[in-house]
Amino acid sequence: MADALERLSRQAAADRRVIGFGGGLPCPALFPRRALTAAFLRALHARNVPALQYAWPEGFATLRQHIAARLAQRGARVSPDEIIVTSGAQQAITIAAQLLLRRGARVGVDAETYPSALDAFRTLGLVPTAAPASVLYRMPAVANPGGATMASTERRAMLARARFVIEDDAYGDLLFEGAAPTPLLAASRSRVVYVGTFSKTLGPGLRVGFLIVPRQLHARALRRKADDDLQANSLSQAIVQEYLAHDDFELFLRKLRRHYRRRAERLMTAMARHLPAWTWAAPAGGFGLWVHTDQRVDETAFLRRSVSAGVSFDPGSRFLCQAGAHDGPTRLRLCFSAVPETAIDEGVRRLARAWATTTRSASSRRVP
Amino acid sequence: MADALERLSRQAAADRRVIGFGGGLPCPALFPRRALTAAFLRALHARNVPALQYAWPEGFATLRQHIAARLAQRGARVSPDEIIVTSGAQQAITIAAQLLLRRGARVGVDAETYPSALDAFRTLGLVPTAAPASVLYRMPAVANPGGATMASTERRAMLARARFVIEDDAYGDLLFEGAAPTPLLAASRSRVVYVGTFSKTLGPGLRVGFLIVPRQLHARALRRKADDDLQANSLSQAIVQEYLAHDDFELFLRKLRRHYRRRAERLMTAMARHLPAWTWAAPAGGFGLWVHTDQRVDETAFLRRSVSAGVSFDPGSRFLCQAGAHDGPTRLRLCFSAVPETAIDEGVRRLARAWATTTRSASSRRVP
Repeated sequence: MADALERLSRQAAADRRVIGFGGGLPCPALFPRRALTAAFLRALHARNVPALQYAWPEGFATLRQHIAARLAQRGARVSPDEIIVTSGAQQAITIAAQLLLRRGARVGVDAETYPSALDAFRTLGLVPTAAPASVLYRMPAVANPGGATMASTERRAMLARARFVIEDDAYGDLLFEGAAPTPLLAASRSRVVYVGTFSKTLGPGLRVGFLIVPRQLHARALRRKADDDLQANSLSQAIVQEYLAHDDFELFLRKLRRHYRRRAERLMTAMARHLPAWTWAAPAGGFGLWVHTDQRVDETAFLRRSVSAGVSFDPGSRFLCQAGAHDGPTRLRLCFSAVPETAIDEGVRRLARAWATTTRSASSRRVP
Repeated sequence: MADALERLSRQAAADRRVIGFGGGLPCPALFPRRALTAAFLRALHARNVPALQYAWPEGFATLRQHIAARLAQRGARVSPDEIIVTSGAQQAITIAAQLLLRRGARVGVDAETYPSALDAFRTLGLVPTAAPASVLYRMPAVANPGGATMASTERRAMLARARFVIEDDAYGDLLFEGAAPTPLLAASRSRVVYVGTFSKTLGPGLRVGFLIVPRQLHARALRRKADDDLQANSLSQAIVQEYLAHDDFELFLRKLRRHYRRRAERLMTAMARHLPAWTWAAPAGGFGLWVHTDQRVDETAFLRRSVSAGVSFDPGSRFLCQAGAHDGPTRLRLCFSAVPETAIDEGVRRLARAWATTTRSASSRRVP
């Protein structure tokens, strides 16, 4: 069934007529192409072209200085030497899990969380659980898919109980209101493993993430990084480094926040109009809306009908910590991030049509 | 002691006055900067900019078609669907080892082999051995560090005995004589796991490698790739894809082969002049010369003296499958690839001086 869902998602992504609420993609129109091109050209003119050459596993020194400076502005004091540049946040999560947990161990997650983290944990032989656990994986700034910012009381309680928290700060730069919040990392260097990324802002195709682990784990984390793939790619590191040195990243982030906030509002307006029985919590930031429908239906059938109707979404089952455990109404994630503003209303209209057909046929099956 | 060696290598790499025979770096003057810049500009003008966006874990389809076409020219018929683009060859090696072997298992390697493969195997809990084993890791085209091409009788005997062979073809495009040889992959699709890369030719900083596994292992390999880091970086994939579509890669490879061959000859000439007691086999291709000195000395002391004298090399111990097992004369790898031709003779002269000081002080310690 997971395969059927993946086939449908791939089919939808390949079809330009489909309005894609799936995938968690940043808006391609917002990639800072001109600035990244200028950064590339500068990087390729550097003596001996480090952008194309091998580099040390910890990553480019100047890039790590920029990352440390941004974290310091947010209240977390970290030396550039403690930062490891990774091949995206995903690699940082995988390394963190390997460092902190052994095969068979439980890892505490939100009941609904980032599917690729769940996948990685399971492949490593770990058991994701929504129950209390000594090592937690959390997204305090903006949860994916829930969209909530963790309350400060919850942050404190969590840090008091857990032995380690893997803080995935993927959307930390993309809160709709105000600047980036204080990361959990600022509260504890010894028990927080921090995961950051430029994927949601400058572009996921660059694959530049970063990992900060407690000091006593640094050598092992670096060893693991080098064994996995030697180093994060030099070209992207050089580009991001040049970009951060020459461009106003904070100004760019303000633009992104306004933009994604407006799209989120558009989506919620369209939902209220076309699917008034569905519920959601307004997200604090990020790319998506986590939606509870009002009925339980066959998820694959619903996605199939939706794609036929010219719209796609992320099936809710992918986000569940316990696959199959959920038996409430069907859930889904709708990402507003990569859908042009003018297409959002039409996308939701198509979704409502597919939903009506799906629930009608489901009822007709129940009462033959 | 390994840490002392690494510190010395890093110190040498950071010092422009040091002539660097260490590291296995391609020559930065040979990076096709202009062509890669044109490829980048085309990639960034594509609709929706896939170069900056998320992509599927298997990698860009057109890139995989180019890779399949090149392999077909060399006699290996592989469908593009069977190719997984990886974050460099290192990730492909790591995934291959994880697929084929369990913690505690032995993996057969040459007695002297690629250090980062040894590191990865050990971190995975595998035991590298030069004795016969059911799963082997080999570099048939050009061995690193030995520099030899595997004889066809040896290839056949190996395939007859082994259950699986991980074929690391890192230097397959860089044989000094003739075109790229037939990969082992052409002889068996069911027992050869193939690892390729653009690192030694277009640039290691791009981190574009690829992995081909027997069909029944493909789904697991792809799963592992996605869990590790979601996907190889889109930007480099787009650049390499554009480069292969618009430029004459084979012509470029001929230029590289001539260039590296000339440097290898220069190095061997300088060695014969300044260090006539040392021995080596002329390499069939690649970036380095594997050298046997005529005495056993303290490797760290020798590297320290060398760096002081303004030259560096790769310590032989890094390449040994059984660390510490070797008690013959000291060995080392000298890479000619990234040293300007005019600096090669001077580099070897400095090395000879450091060697003389090291062996003198060793003898004087013996007879106090």
